[in-house]
Amino acid sequence: MNAYHQYCEWQQKIADVHNAIAVLSWDQETYLPEKGAKHRSQQIATLSGIAHEIATAPTWGELLHDLQNNSHLSEWERCNVIKTADDYERQSKFTTDFVMRESKAIADAYHAWMHARQANDFKVFAPALTTIVDIKRETCHIMGYDEHPYDALLHEYEPQGKTSVITPLFESVRSQLVDFVQQIAQQPQVEDSFLYDHYHKDAQWEFGLELLEQMGYDFQAGRQDKSTHPFTTSFSPLDVRVTTRVNEHDLNEMTWSCLHEGGHALYEQGLKPEYYGLPTGKAASLGIHESQSRLWENNVGRSLPYWKANFKRLRGIFRKQLKNVGYFQFYKAINKVEPSLIRTSADELTYHFHILIRFEIEKALIEGKIEVKDLAEIWNAKYREYLGIDVPDDKHGVLQDIHWSHGSFGYFPTYSLGSFYAAQFFAAAQRSIPDLNSQIEAGKLGELLAWLRTNIHQYGMLYTSEELCQKVTGEPLNFDYFMQYAREKYGAIYGL
Amino acid sequence: MNAYHQYCEWQQKIADVHNAIAVLSWDQETYLPEKGAKHRSQQIATLSGIAHEIATAPTWGELLHDLQNNSHLSEWERCNVIKTADDYERQSKFTTDFVMRESKAIADAYHAWMHARQANDFKVFAPALTTIVDIKRETCHIMGYDEHPYDALLHEYEPQGKTSVITPLFESVRSQLVDFVQQIAQQPQVEDSFLYDHYHKDAQWEFGLELLEQMGYDFQAGRQDKSTHPFTTSFSPLDVRVTTRVNEHDLNEMTWSCLHEGGHALYEQGLKPEYYGLPTGKAASLGIHESQSRLWENNVGRSLPYWKANFKRLRGIFRKQLKNVGYFQFYKAINKVEPSLIRTSADELTYHFHILIRFEIEKALIEGKIEVKDLAEIWNAKYREYLGIDVPDDKHGVLQDIHWSHGSFGYFPTYSLGSFYAAQFFAAAQRSIPDLNSQIEAGKLGELLAWLRTNIHQYGMLYTSEELCQKVTGEPLNFDYFMQYAREKYGAIYGL
Repeated sequence: MNAYHQYCEWQQKIADVHNAIAVLSWDQETYLPEKGAKHRSQQIATLSGIAHEIATAPTWGELLHDLQNNSHLSEWERCNVIKTADDYERQSKFTTDFVMRESKAIADAYHAWMHARQANDFKVFAPALTTIVDIKRETCHIMGYDEHPYDALLHEYEPQGKTSVITPLFESVRSQLVDFVQQIAQQPQVEDSFLYDHYHKDAQWEFGLELLEQMGYDFQAGRQDKSTHPFTTSFSPLDVRVTTRVNEHDLNEMTWSCLHEGGHALYEQGLKPEYYGLPTGKAASLGIHESQSRLWENNVGRSLPYWKANFKRLRGIFRKQLKNVGYFQFYKAINKVEPSLIRTSADELTYHFHILIRFEIEKALIEGKIEVKDLAEIWNAKYREYLGIDVPDDKHGVLQDIHWSHGSFGYFPTYSLGSFYAAQFFAAAQRSIPDLNSQIEAGKLGELLAWLRTNIHQYGMLYTSEELCQKVTGEPLNFDYFMQYAREKYGAIYGL
Repeated sequence: MNAYHQYCEWQQKIADVHNAIAVLSWDQETYLPEKGAKHRSQQIATLSGIAHEIATAPTWGELLHDLQNNSHLSEWERCNVIKTADDYERQSKFTTDFVMRESKAIADAYHAWMHARQANDFKVFAPALTTIVDIKRETCHIMGYDEHPYDALLHEYEPQGKTSVITPLFESVRSQLVDFVQQIAQQPQVEDSFLYDHYHKDAQWEFGLELLEQMGYDFQAGRQDKSTHPFTTSFSPLDVRVTTRVNEHDLNEMTWSCLHEGGHALYEQGLKPEYYGLPTGKAASLGIHESQSRLWENNVGRSLPYWKANFKRLRGIFRKQLKNVGYFQFYKAINKVEPSLIRTSADELTYHFHILIRFEIEKALIEGKIEVKDLAEIWNAKYREYLGIDVPDDKHGVLQDIHWSHGSFGYFPTYSLGSFYAAQFFAAAQRSIPDLNSQIEAGKLGELLAWLRTNIHQYGMLYTSEELCQKVTGEPLNFDYFMQYAREKYGAIYGL
């Protein structure tokens, strides 16, 4: 067996264990009976330990080292080896003691966060979060970085991501988007109360499946189930599952989770099965992943042509609720812009203020410019400044997201990157497919999907996010595309 | 950490991996999208390999060896260590080469069996089955045995099981049950055509859940889903799942699979969670496992008191179909005795002829008294002799069961052992709970379950099947209990 073949076998063995963990986690969120939780956590922990042992075995490191100098590899093979070797190197920098300390800190922080939410008091969470932040500062030190310590954290979610690239993006959010939203706020608000009428859950569920089908989601290589928080998970490009939740008094939840998770799932289903478990068989980054979910959710799913195609069907199902609603009124309702407290239910414009705030806080924490004990105050001040609203309590403020309790620092920016990439990719798709809007109006989404498959999905990690963006759109990530999309769309809706 | 604690950690780590495999397999049978099959097999194979590596590590062998001489262990702890050490010893007897040859033979045999069924021709399966039989003969040789080579195969399913104990049981089946069934055949047959009316699947499903609930199955520690072939699987005593299938034109399938799998599941839910993954936290044997499913399916579920309790509810659901049916008529219909070709749909008496035939064939194959090439002929002759019916083709004959293609020799006898143990256990329960029949008539099954929990479930593998039988019933396994049960019940139904 040649060395590259040996590499594939080993790497795919690791992937098999990770995918088994993903199956156990999927089951945990969908079907696990309540008493089964404790043993399930233990089973997942055991598999995680096994995956870590296999992925850090010294013989594996030697194989990767030797292979990097092999000149007979193709471009794709070389990418696989180099990215895997990079990961191995990084993993090896952490002592077992550090990994265990981090696991414990995360377990403690998760419980502290839960208790703090119950008590509605950030002070309950602060000590555990302080430990997490200390560990994250240490992580930056251990990993090393060229420009900014925060880059070391970004890398886990956005390989090669740079604080020096992301900072100006959020400066644009601050200088352009804040102003634009303030203009919107001065216009008459759109009417959306009919979205909160009663919509029967089974009918919503069926409609959601139709939307997924129409997008091109392959139900022979996936399925949709219900969970408390919608998510996408992949066990191979041929088994990519989505979940949704249905709220009978809010048509938004099912609709946007189907389109959003469907977008993530199309990316995973579009990866090459022959690179299963290898870097070229994995998504380029979380930012690119989010670009796919946002593109389908917002650029397609919240567009006028999309509802020209689909509104009649929706109204056919919910005759009573939508009797007096036309498709344009529906379109305006689903694009209502209004500053609000909770990130996950924000509209697609004010959403980025929520991320801006988290990015500024994370960066300042890592730089040591602010401390955890002052976070609630800082948080509330920023919500007043950027969103113009008062945070009534910690549960609706600094305690709302789970990420920090999981130790996920550097994750939030990828949400905004996703929207910005989506706008730029969608503009490129429109240039490539001149009648794209008419196709969407006709409910035909196949050519768009084929374009995404060819230009983005198939490459996996062959290119970094930045390289991919350059290749697909001819330029680096450029906030102007998002701003232009926002001005055109919301200018029309709000009569600006 | 003391050695016994170390032992538990290691053994439970192995259990975690096996339980993860069980989750992946459960998902494969219930929810897996069709294109996901190939990667799923690979993921299961990888985890199996990992479990094998951990379970045969030399340091693990040393730990087990040292612990066996530790005089500070309790009875339960000693049982765990000794049974695990026995397993380790047995595993260690097989070379990696042998294990790989066996895996390959099984994979080949499974495909050959599928093809043979499609072609309806045993000759297509014969070469692969010959290899399997050779490997099984070799297995007996490698494992070793005191009395009979077949004991070495029995041991995997029925620890300490002896051919010298099982042979006379099947001689009793031949001498007593064959004759009894012939007497039944001369009586007027019972009417059961209403069981094959149309029964809506959702209503059947709901009724099945009620039956499980009534048995005492804990839905907070389990769930029921649908699969092609009903089965029970356990990921811990707190997560034990059953599956069923619903046939709208046969009320039997859902009903008996709920009660049968429910019986298996109650056993698993009754194991002590603190012995998770250890021998005392596992079922004593397949025979004892089957005794629990058969006891609930037949001794309880096909009894008159049970339908006195439940028939009114069933008729309330299916008014049209059961309009002219009384509970006694229903009781007779579900106990119709009639020789048939297919084991899995046989009644509870002729069922044992199907097992008798497989046992005689397996034993003779291992003894080298017959050869695979003659199996179809031998099979058909035995069906004529014991069941009085002609086998029309191989698919309805020697090709009907999957077991041999899986290399499972020594498995079939446990099905009959299950029924015989069930009859003996149920008689003991009736002695302990004098008003058991009235309780069942009142739909109260809690005291019976508590009796099974106390006398059987809680012990896991602390006792062998034979020891357990002695302890619970005061004597070794005795076929007379089954025969007496059969004579009383079917004598009344058929007016003998």
